[in-house]
Amino acid sequence: MPENQIRVKFEPQGRVVSVLKDSKAIEAAARAGLTIDTPCGGGGRCGKCRVRLITAAGVPNDAECRELSAEALSQGWRLACQTTLEADAVIAIPESSLFGSHHQIQVASDTGHCGDLRPAVRKEYVELPPPSLTEDAPDLLRLENALGPFDIQLPLVRDIGPRLRDGAFRGTAVLAEEELIDFEAGNTTGQSFGAAFDIGTTTVVGTLLDLHTGSERAVVSRMNPQTSFGDDVLSRITHAGASSENLAALRDAILGEVNVMIAALCADAGIRREEIYEITFAGNTTMEHLLIGINPAQLGQVPFVPVCARGIARPAAELGVHIHPRGRSYVFPVIGGFVGGDTVAGMLATELPELESPAFMVDIGTNGEIVLAHNGQLWAASTAAGPAFEGARISCGMRATRGAIEKVVFDGGVRCSVIDDAPPAGLCGSGLIDAVAELLRAGIVTSDGRMLPPEALPEGLPGELRARVRRTENETVEFLLAPGVALHQRDVRELQLASGAIRAGIAILLKQAGLDVTELKHVLIAGGFGSFIRRNNAQRIGLIPPEIEHTRIRYVGNTSLSGARWALLSTQSRRRAEELARRTKHVELSTDMDFAMEFAMAMRFPD
Amino acid sequence: MPENQIRVKFEPQGRVVSVLKDSKAIEAAARAGLTIDTPCGGGGRCGKCRVRLITAAGVPNDAECRELSAEALSQGWRLACQTTLEADAVIAIPESSLFGSHHQIQVASDTGHCGDLRPAVRKEYVELPPPSLTEDAPDLLRLENALGPFDIQLPLVRDIGPRLRDGAFRGTAVLAEEELIDFEAGNTTGQSFGAAFDIGTTTVVGTLLDLHTGSERAVVSRMNPQTSFGDDVLSRITHAGASSENLAALRDAILGEVNVMIAALCADAGIRREEIYEITFAGNTTMEHLLIGINPAQLGQVPFVPVCARGIARPAAELGVHIHPRGRSYVFPVIGGFVGGDTVAGMLATELPELESPAFMVDIGTNGEIVLAHNGQLWAASTAAGPAFEGARISCGMRATRGAIEKVVFDGGVRCSVIDDAPPAGLCGSGLIDAVAELLRAGIVTSDGRMLPPEALPEGLPGELRARVRRTENETVEFLLAPGVALHQRDVRELQLASGAIRAGIAILLKQAGLDVTELKHVLIAGGFGSFIRRNNAQRIGLIPPEIEHTRIRYVGNTSLSGARWALLSTQSRRRAEELARRTKHVELSTDMDFAMEFAMAMRFPD
Repeated sequence: MPENQIRVKFEPQGRVVSVLKDSKAIEAAARAGLTIDTPCGGGGRCGKCRVRLITAAGVPNDAECRELSAEALSQGWRLACQTTLEADAVIAIPESSLFGSHHQIQVASDTGHCGDLRPAVRKEYVELPPPSLTEDAPDLLRLENALGPFDIQLPLVRDIGPRLRDGAFRGTAVLAEEELIDFEAGNTTGQSFGAAFDIGTTTVVGTLLDLHTGSERAVVSRMNPQTSFGDDVLSRITHAGASSENLAALRDAILGEVNVMIAALCADAGIRREEIYEITFAGNTTMEHLLIGINPAQLGQVPFVPVCARGIARPAAELGVHIHPRGRSYVFPVIGGFVGGDTVAGMLATELPELESPAFMVDIGTNGEIVLAHNGQLWAASTAAGPAFEGARISCGMRATRGAIEKVVFDGGVRCSVIDDAPPAGLCGSGLIDAVAELLRAGIVTSDGRMLPPEALPEGLPGELRARVRRTENETVEFLLAPGVALHQRDVRELQLASGAIRAGIAILLKQAGLDVTELKHVLIAGGFGSFIRRNNAQRIGLIPPEIEHTRIRYVGNTSLSGARWALLSTQSRRRAEELARRTKHVELSTDMDFAMEFAMAMRFPD
Repeated sequence: MPENQIRVKFEPQGRVVSVLKDSKAIEAAARAGLTIDTPCGGGGRCGKCRVRLITAAGVPNDAECRELSAEALSQGWRLACQTTLEADAVIAIPESSLFGSHHQIQVASDTGHCGDLRPAVRKEYVELPPPSLTEDAPDLLRLENALGPFDIQLPLVRDIGPRLRDGAFRGTAVLAEEELIDFEAGNTTGQSFGAAFDIGTTTVVGTLLDLHTGSERAVVSRMNPQTSFGDDVLSRITHAGASSENLAALRDAILGEVNVMIAALCADAGIRREEIYEITFAGNTTMEHLLIGINPAQLGQVPFVPVCARGIARPAAELGVHIHPRGRSYVFPVIGGFVGGDTVAGMLATELPELESPAFMVDIGTNGEIVLAHNGQLWAASTAAGPAFEGARISCGMRATRGAIEKVVFDGGVRCSVIDDAPPAGLCGSGLIDAVAELLRAGIVTSDGRMLPPEALPEGLPGELRARVRRTENETVEFLLAPGVALHQRDVRELQLASGAIRAGIAILLKQAGLDVTELKHVLIAGGFGSFIRRNNAQRIGLIPPEIEHTRIRYVGNTSLSGARWALLSTQSRRRAEELARRTKHVELSTDMDFAMEFAMAMRFPD
């Protein structure tokens, strides 16, 4: 282990990450895929992000002394946004500190926002009176008398008689909404699982949840295999639209991956596929169309009209997903051709419309979706940011997996945090933002995005940094971050495009609402690429307008996945998602002249 | 054509039958499968059974002169229960005179009973605004704005985008309850069909209805192919219960036949299978279980508990029936193990619970189901009458098809009416009842069911009848009805069993309700065997208690099919069926000691 890296283990999840020494606890947690909620923007003022250091805790700072009792401090409780980690540590994160957790769902039900733990699937153990000559009601009526009226598919109708008799008329009914989907021997009410998936253009993340307790049992992340057909949304639309074989190939690719991931989740949690009774999916409009098998060709043509609008609740088998044979699936509602279910899920999980307004959410993925909430109104738009933030189109780019540089700090020299503490293999999104921000600060990259050649570098630049700037064979310039990992001039250009598109979108939505950027009370940065976005760096490169006060910005993690999880755990959340999707005004940027102007201006990094 | 037969053609159905000269018009119509309604019991007092003779009409009788205007009489209008046919005739039957007709459904809606013509499937032609940048709602939302919210299966979701565009956003939506099942090019609102089936133990009848007008377009009747596995319900239960292969064979047999019959209906009406959007099924509990594929083994064991209770509304494809790929199916609710959907359908179509009470319905099929309605209460029971009335277990028995003797009159000699005027090939149910009634009257059969040998025949017996009584090789006696068609002693025994079981059941239900048989205001005789039951003969053999006044008895035809038709044409009727099934008290006779006593007594023919 390099001396500037430390190992941090999180309980009860058992996840271990290596991060740079002196990282904040919240940053290390994000690296482990655990998004800690910071309603106050990490200012140490709300006390929501409390965690307990099981290994020796450092000296508490003023904020911690104010927010936590002496007893709590002595037990190792600290604020994740304040405490810095100087050595290997083991940290316990209470569920209540996690963003979008089950606990939040239960708590939030008091305020009526997002519903309590009430999945569409419920189990009920019943003991029915066995039939006799005086009690000769038909089997299904006998069940209805115990459970209330239900729908039932014929395969189960065919099976229910023997099952009732084999179990002496006792067993566990499995109900999905109004349908009886199974009747299991014995009392299995404690065994009930669901899966929630975020289908990103580049990355697919799936999580297995215990529907009885709401807790997460396993999580798995993979590359979207459709990437081999094109790395952005438009190339997939073009490919799928060319022939029905292509469409089928794209659908098969994602379905196959989802089914493999379900198998992985089951293996990880030690459960059977048949114990998963429901699965929810959030993704952008194109990803959802491809998952369902809808030809997305019309998404590639003005006026970019999707087929689906409301969420699609159908049997999982009809979708082609292998869970319980009569399990259910739910695909999130969409807002428009390029503002999809992932954005709806994000609004749901962040409770954006309930925050003090105006509030903004930016979801940084292959597309950059932005949502503005103000005085009860909602606007949403999508910017074709491209997959740079997920490592694509960057010469040494990679997803946030083992070997990816996920954090870069210039401290005279260059310090890199590498995922899994492996030899550096490339650069993921958060590392890219850090690197360019630092290069801008060091004056190696100029505001117009030019990487200065060795002879034009600023005079005061430390020698160690200067030595890393090199001319390449084709006469452009690169900056060596680590052995074999260099950032090229054209990588900076890609970042300019991606972040410029998002910032221009932000500007247009604010203009539509008649707001100035400084009026924003909340800016939520969501992103499914598995790492932490450092606000100061995001502002340095202009991804987030630099005028926004630091503490108003919050990193909220993969909100698409959080929303999919909420919809799985709470039917009330699902209804809320449907309502949000229909309430939100869709702003089409691609045909907006103003946007083109703003985009051109936003290509320049802030001075 | 033998001189005592005449040919009668019915319009607009175009059906032709041959019947005995001097038959009533109502009898000839029944022979053609057209049940004319006679609320007054055929007494010529209600004027409901009016028909128009297109060929020369005979002299009207007193009742006709009272019920019909002079103008109507001059146009050939007569009462079907009064007018006798002396020569070949062409008769027009207005829809309003048919039992259980669409017309009745519409008329009855005024009184709130059985609902107007409102099938679960409806078509709506829509012209949607085509998408534009200012009108960029998703396709399905665009449809919902025109149609209201709907459910939709994924195959149609996948197809809807291109269909909308190919048709310039115009076309016909096909909705089944809450589900959009298709979107067709152009305006097809006039083309909408459904099928209604009666699945009898012995006979299966299917009819194709125009859902737009409610009128019948084709009808087809076949032997239930499961008969080869056993001719009564219990033998099928035993066979199916023995192995899952047997069960599958029985299910495949009936499903295959239904699908062949659907093809025949389509061919007959000149429509495509895909234009049938819904199919309804009524049958006894075992037939319905086998159709669905439920092992009926538990129906063969005390306490004879069925699996299904409520009607099963599922996609037709799930049932295995080939209509529109997303068409719907509805299988009638059942009351108990041996009182099934056919009985519920009968109660529905006869409006038994609304008749002046006490009212009785007897459905004479392979099982004899009986229902008593009194002061808002309903009791139902089933008697294992056996398939004698459908021609089985009778030495020369056959179904009511070509060549069957369907009417027998002794007038010194023997006059037989043969279906299709073919050479006599056997005896169907109505012919069997007639023959035994006449044999009883002639004294050839005694009240205890013995067929007297030639030497013991009454003295005054006409010579032509006497000559027909013969000893057989094995020393029993037979009566020759026609060349090659003889009634044997053991056939009389079968009829005693069948009719005794039904009469004993009637006695038990009356006892449960504390009623005497003479108090009955209405007795409805239903039967799906395609011919007319002559009340006097049914009473002579004791199938219907002889104490009941003649005009209180009505023949109402295949009420199982009528009910299936109503459920197809009216969702209100369907809800009514569900309510009737649950309201009716199921009386189990097979374990009732009283029934065994009554049965023993009812085996004797009335003196």
